[in-house]
Amino acid sequence: MADHLVTIDTASQPVHVPTGTLLNEAARLAGVEIMQPCGGQGRCGRCAVQVIAGNVRRRSALRLSQGDVAAGYALACQTVVEGDVQIVVPPQEKIERRLTTDRTAAEVSVPLGYDPERTQSVRRVWLTLDPPNLNDQTDDWSRIRTALRQKAKVKDVSVTLEQLQQIGAVLREGDWRVTAVYEVEPGHVPNSPARLIDLIPGHQDDPFMGVAIDIGTTTVTVWLVDLETGEVRAQLSEYNGQISRGEDVISRIIYASKNGGLDEMRVMVLETINRLIDTACKRAQLQNNLIYKATIVGNSTMIHLLLGIPSANIRLSPFITTVNNPPSLPAYQVVLDIHPHGTVDCLPGVASYVGADISSGVFSSGMDDTEKLTLFMDVGTNGEIVLGSRDWLVTCACSAGPAFEGAGVVYGMRATVGAIEEVWINARTYEPSFRVIGSVRPRGFCGSGLISLLAELFMTGVVDKGGHLNTQSESPRIREGEHGLEYVVAWGKESYHGRDIAITHVDIDNLLRAKAAIYAGFTVMSDRVGVPLEAVEQVLIGGSFGKYINVEKAVQIGLLPDMEWDRFQFLGNTAVRGAYYALLDREARARIQDIAARMTYIELSVDNTFYEAFNAAMFLPHTDTSRFPNVHQELAERQNVT
Amino acid sequence: MADHLVTIDTASQPVHVPTGTLLNEAARLAGVEIMQPCGGQGRCGRCAVQVIAGNVRRRSALRLSQGDVAAGYALACQTVVEGDVQIVVPPQEKIERRLTTDRTAAEVSVPLGYDPERTQSVRRVWLTLDPPNLNDQTDDWSRIRTALRQKAKVKDVSVTLEQLQQIGAVLREGDWRVTAVYEVEPGHVPNSPARLIDLIPGHQDDPFMGVAIDIGTTTVTVWLVDLETGEVRAQLSEYNGQISRGEDVISRIIYASKNGGLDEMRVMVLETINRLIDTACKRAQLQNNLIYKATIVGNSTMIHLLLGIPSANIRLSPFITTVNNPPSLPAYQVVLDIHPHGTVDCLPGVASYVGADISSGVFSSGMDDTEKLTLFMDVGTNGEIVLGSRDWLVTCACSAGPAFEGAGVVYGMRATVGAIEEVWINARTYEPSFRVIGSVRPRGFCGSGLISLLAELFMTGVVDKGGHLNTQSESPRIREGEHGLEYVVAWGKESYHGRDIAITHVDIDNLLRAKAAIYAGFTVMSDRVGVPLEAVEQVLIGGSFGKYINVEKAVQIGLLPDMEWDRFQFLGNTAVRGAYYALLDREARARIQDIAARMTYIELSVDNTFYEAFNAAMFLPHTDTSRFPNVHQELAERQNVT
Repeated sequence: MADHLVTIDTASQPVHVPTGTLLNEAARLAGVEIMQPCGGQGRCGRCAVQVIAGNVRRRSALRLSQGDVAAGYALACQTVVEGDVQIVVPPQEKIERRLTTDRTAAEVSVPLGYDPERTQSVRRVWLTLDPPNLNDQTDDWSRIRTALRQKAKVKDVSVTLEQLQQIGAVLREGDWRVTAVYEVEPGHVPNSPARLIDLIPGHQDDPFMGVAIDIGTTTVTVWLVDLETGEVRAQLSEYNGQISRGEDVISRIIYASKNGGLDEMRVMVLETINRLIDTACKRAQLQNNLIYKATIVGNSTMIHLLLGIPSANIRLSPFITTVNNPPSLPAYQVVLDIHPHGTVDCLPGVASYVGADISSGVFSSGMDDTEKLTLFMDVGTNGEIVLGSRDWLVTCACSAGPAFEGAGVVYGMRATVGAIEEVWINARTYEPSFRVIGSVRPRGFCGSGLISLLAELFMTGVVDKGGHLNTQSESPRIREGEHGLEYVVAWGKESYHGRDIAITHVDIDNLLRAKAAIYAGFTVMSDRVGVPLEAVEQVLIGGSFGKYINVEKAVQIGLLPDMEWDRFQFLGNTAVRGAYYALLDREARARIQDIAARMTYIELSVDNTFYEAFNAAMFLPHTDTSRFPNVHQELAERQNVT
Repeated sequence: MADHLVTIDTASQPVHVPTGTLLNEAARLAGVEIMQPCGGQGRCGRCAVQVIAGNVRRRSALRLSQGDVAAGYALACQTVVEGDVQIVVPPQEKIERRLTTDRTAAEVSVPLGYDPERTQSVRRVWLTLDPPNLNDQTDDWSRIRTALRQKAKVKDVSVTLEQLQQIGAVLREGDWRVTAVYEVEPGHVPNSPARLIDLIPGHQDDPFMGVAIDIGTTTVTVWLVDLETGEVRAQLSEYNGQISRGEDVISRIIYASKNGGLDEMRVMVLETINRLIDTACKRAQLQNNLIYKATIVGNSTMIHLLLGIPSANIRLSPFITTVNNPPSLPAYQVVLDIHPHGTVDCLPGVASYVGADISSGVFSSGMDDTEKLTLFMDVGTNGEIVLGSRDWLVTCACSAGPAFEGAGVVYGMRATVGAIEEVWINARTYEPSFRVIGSVRPRGFCGSGLISLLAELFMTGVVDKGGHLNTQSESPRIREGEHGLEYVVAWGKESYHGRDIAITHVDIDNLLRAKAAIYAGFTVMSDRVGVPLEAVEQVLIGGSFGKYINVEKAVQIGLLPDMEWDRFQFLGNTAVRGAYYALLDREARARIQDIAARMTYIELSVDNTFYEAFNAAMFLPHTDTSRFPNVHQELAERQNVT
């Protein structure tokens, strides 16, 4: 095969590749990371690069306009090299990585009456041993076991080979005074032998730490916790490094199923987590190896990828995980950058699309302990919903897709500087005004901006209840664009990049699908258990998505059920909070396990019910107007005014 | 530092080394292994090489004659390079490695009524699972656990991360029919969860194997066992590869305490074991990964070195091991070449100098289950002794040293071709005759030859009861040699190497010390428990040493107590036999554990008793003539005849 030279503007060196090499592969060889939110399926159009010289062959040019193609644009994941090539990578497409939140620790209060002696599974004890002599030739390890039994009531304790290789020296270095760190009932097996984590020479009283970790598809959050006081010492978040290989779990699974993809995914999320842990430790001025325990939550795909477990069967019907309740593992096996023998406890999930983040979120929301009929939702990429109370819990996942996270929408973006987060439209002129994060020139729409925009488009008649743009209007903002009909929110002259920022009819369709999936989830679940949605006494919304959305607008598009706003409560990151409680308290851990076991999972694809409910919800706000009385009243009032 | 060229006759390439490099180091760099039975302490003289050109400095020339030194001989472990050097390595000193025994499997009978279903801790079961569907989305691991519970009554089972990473593919490859291999009550913890060893696609019925291993200081023995029938499929032995770094445990501990020495020792014994396992598998025509369990015995130092656990404290007072009862370990951690997740069970020992080979030997000798007062001895390098019966067991180790294994004796050698194994001396002429293993020209003496020689020397008056050679004799065989007085057994003209083969007064002294140590062990132990030696109803002799010695001669020198010969029984390798029983039967394993716990260890160095008993035994056969009535009667009869 012929060998070609690929030159990339941002690469330090050109690379040689054979005919047929994908541009993204060539870029990777050259050390340039090109974003592939859809996992290299040619669906999202985000990996477009400009070929300024040379021969390439485009297998697909989806999402590229004819003008784009004429200007040399090509999808890096769908275009192969057929000669020497020169490429320019548009700067906005390069991977950005920065902290999305960085709050102070003050806002988390330690659970009342936290008593590590009673509730903590990881413990530290000072031992002073009698040195051996010719009348007492007890072996070193038995001497330690005896001391642990006498001093700490530890009936038995297990040890690794690596530890055995060191304890002789540790005992003598500490002159028979040592500090033992151990885990009681490892793996939560009652009456099982404790597990030695470390044996340290002398009586050591350094900080005794743990971490609670939430691996979101989009954002990874780490809380650094003092296990003696329960106090949160640092809270950090960062985008999940896997984003560059797919924005939703499906894209990640597809990527991970490729040769080497699983390892790559695993390394990427570990890099993110370990960097957060490092930063947290630096901020608290302590060493990573003082962290003896980690509790981890995430959706089932995130946990599989973290542990290097193949995830392909999560995506394929009948949607099976390898493990919902992974065993506790020593940190060195997970490659988590804490004490190598520290415990890594991935909390239990329920099913392929209802993971540990949900069981943990349900626990921290308190819904498993209330008599009120509660609807809990974590609207991230998956859209998991839980209905129930103290007595019963049902759950489902409605694969909303990442539209509300800005993916699958031409000008979609994450909730960062430059994102339009709120839109208002004049019902008569169809002229919009908007608010941009950071008050800069707009670059696109974030999730709350899209909800707001869709609600305004509908409430002002720019689109009808089917989501169709009003072509009868004389507004210049409704026009035929590259991708068909669109509505322009910001003209090129006012935008960051000089291009018109519009929402297309395809974008609107994607948003309708996302909101319809979630609402269909509500209705199918309430039908299945025979409890009408109106009976719901409170709606608890977890996840960072929930923190920013405008309930009124979300109800107007039919994403949230139409009920009094005071029944809605935004809880923030319920997942990491649950992991934090489990980190501190074995009973909390047991309750999360119990919740995971108790939750009845409803598989929506088992029959046509969901499909029918989904189709019924593909209207604004819904085919069944009686479900949204307040929205219809508002619409009627507005029409009267107009 | 200057750089010198060292040329070795048997090396493919000369090597460059700095001034001051030891010759054995230079040889190692050149890929030539020089034997160092004493661990490089300059004590044994076995590492002598001939310097035929160039400058060296001898730090010590112990055991070399002036003639040797004049001929250029130098101890490789005590001689440093000071210029370009040319060396010849005498061929008989290069490491030889061959099978010491290679018996057929027929002689071991499977324990009566062996029932793997009841006694075997490692099991295999065929599972046929219901495939998942949209109404049963149970995760893969839970599906396996449920099947194990239903089919094999396994209440719970643990799994490693590595296994979790594979089970999804295994289930689907086997189309939901799989073979599970697992260990019940791993680590012998009652009611603990089983441990998954392997999950194999389909219903697999390959052989299901185990190995019993005895790591002797001198010889490593491996039995390959069919765990379904209990049958021994192959039995192999080979010298322990560590021999080149020291012949006794003390030399090995010293070597292992040097920088890198422990790793080197570990690799050496693993190479020996794994080579034996490979050969056994080839002979039985099966793959190593069909071996799911290994039970290992050895003295405490051998077990520490196998596991890479520092052993220095075993040698230093108060003689403390790191662990007498190591945990079960997966084979990949031990680096044993069986199934990587197979169980490696190092059986429990008692103390630094009474290891698992003794607890295992006591079990297989049956002495823990008899009413007869029994003396059990395993006379290897250490000389472990056990006294007792069903009701009580005491044990001690009397550090006999390796003299009976041919070390510490100028013409000592192992029991291989060319070794004098039996000697007869004419009481009048002092002329000897002898038998040589292989009926070739003699090269030296093996242990039984030394016992025989010493007995004949004493019984014929060549030496007196103090071991002193009779200088009044006119025999040319008693003469002043390089190392003082000596008795020539074979003249140079009849020997393999053309040199006279003699036993020196220093050699005799070493043999006296060895036999005195063992006999002193008997007397101190019988005094300590208040049971006279005469009360012993049977003497069980384990270890390969015991197989070849002549009881009559051993009694004549005072190595064994003077009692009717029919009370002595030679059991061969009791250690590996115990390991074999433990491999098959959890109850046998538990009994060995119980024996190790029950045996009272008597530390001989705690007061002067042993020292006094040792001095009293430094005569032939003993200071106290009443202890050896038959020997004295025989002596008297002989004198009457003469």
